[in-house]
Amino acid sequence: MTSRSGGDPPRAAPTTVTGRVLAILSAFSADAAALSLSAIARSAGLPLSTAHRLVGELTGWGALERGVDGRYRIGLRLWEVGALAPRSLGLRERAMPYLEDLYEATRQNVQLAVRDGTEVVYVERLAHPEAVRVFSRVGGRMPLHATGVGQVLLAFAPPAVQEEVLAAPLPPLTSKTVVDRHELRRILAAVRREGVAVADGMVDLLSLSVAAPVRGEDDRVVAALSVVVPSAGAEPRSIVPAVRAAARGISRALGSPAARRRPSGVLAAQV
Amino acid sequence: MTSRSGGDPPRAAPTTVTGRVLAILSAFSADAAALSLSAIARSAGLPLSTAHRLVGELTGWGALERGVDGRYRIGLRLWEVGALAPRSLGLRERAMPYLEDLYEATRQNVQLAVRDGTEVVYVERLAHPEAVRVFSRVGGRMPLHATGVGQVLLAFAPPAVQEEVLAAPLPPLTSKTVVDRHELRRILAAVRREGVAVADGMVDLLSLSVAAPVRGEDDRVVAALSVVVPSAGAEPRSIVPAVRAAARGISRALGSPAARRRPSGVLAAQV
Repeated sequence: MTSRSGGDPPRAAPTTVTGRVLAILSAFSADAAALSLSAIARSAGLPLSTAHRLVGELTGWGALERGVDGRYRIGLRLWEVGALAPRSLGLRERAMPYLEDLYEATRQNVQLAVRDGTEVVYVERLAHPEAVRVFSRVGGRMPLHATGVGQVLLAFAPPAVQEEVLAAPLPPLTSKTVVDRHELRRILAAVRREGVAVADGMVDLLSLSVAAPVRGEDDRVVAALSVVVPSAGAEPRSIVPAVRAAARGISRALGSPAARRRPSGVLAAQV
Repeated sequence: MTSRSGGDPPRAAPTTVTGRVLAILSAFSADAAALSLSAIARSAGLPLSTAHRLVGELTGWGALERGVDGRYRIGLRLWEVGALAPRSLGLRERAMPYLEDLYEATRQNVQLAVRDGTEVVYVERLAHPEAVRVFSRVGGRMPLHATGVGQVLLAFAPPAVQEEVLAAPLPPLTSKTVVDRHELRRILAAVRREGVAVADGMVDLLSLSVAAPVRGEDDRVVAALSVVVPSAGAEPRSIVPAVRAAARGISRALGSPAARRRPSGVLAAQV
């Protein structure tokens, strides 16, 4: 899993107070969820005294919490404010009934993700206790080219985003990850044509993902939904209709005009 | 639902830049999730020019996002950072398999909540499509005295917190909400004795909640788990064992020594 915010390497000192506050928040990551004051200062590129003052203010408000071990963690209040992001919990609330239906129907992993720049961000994941293990994490990131949801989000992203991804190296996560840009172009064209992505063993050799686009009120693709099943013996064809139906249901809940119309175009092309 | 951050009333101007940044974030709430620049400035008690500059910095970092309607919303990146809060998604990740088991077993609403001051904050909710409607929201708040999870969290809260709640008015949410402090004291003692709270019609006359405590690595109560079912015809006795077992499972996953021991004390007292 990639992470935008690192832990250790010292950075150029931010020049505004807002920049310093944001640099302090950026010091935290999944791998560095609890930090000492000096680690925060180092990561944010701040003198210890400045870090001390700002961390104190952030703690007073509840953006950070200080543990009994003296280290700081992200506070509940920042999570609450973050939960107001329409692309996280707002989307999740609308999508949840459909995710739950899909979870009930498949008894596997169900994921909802959005694109941020050239990465996938997972906003929800339901995992059946007996489902194949997945490596995504709510709030975590993955590269677009390697995951089912990422391929969907990339296929429907603005051309500039697609070119940016296609121009950069495509890191392999497994021996089956697509790393050839011509092959990726073909995959993206197929995703646009068929309205579904099937990524087999690209994140982890043992799992296969079937993903479909979720559209918003202007019919642009705002999210992607996937079901992740064991790769061995998987029959994507048996999962595709359920994933596509749920994605369409969420699109309708989000106000997508296309999801209200009688299916045509992409779907008819397959008949 | 109560909300810590309001929308409209202008406030005293914050005196530090950090305070101004936090006042901007505080302007957003579930009822005011999309705000114009002038609404942000008014709510944060800032001159428009100051708000404009700070909002620009926050938007550049991804803490806010500007919509096509020109209004600002909380950004995905702030949600990602917030998701690092150990009391939100960290707790949720550990608890999720047990929440899913309980959801499978009951086909009702399953909730996980923590206490923040004198309020309940919901960190997860799974709702079966056919379950009774609940009024909680992930990231939302409720008063402690009126909800099953709240009564559990209050029963095991430090004495000072209990006294603070008991000294203040107990607002009724329905005709069945406990509003008498002596009655609430009796309820809390029963919750401590039995390790479970049953709140019938206290948030909404149609629903009944069965809640149990979740303990952390020092055996302190760190969260509460509940199942919410229709009040009519509910048989709490049939739900209590499942809720208690799941709460114990989560406690064990969190490293609670008590949840690793053979049941005694509270449980034995009921035999």
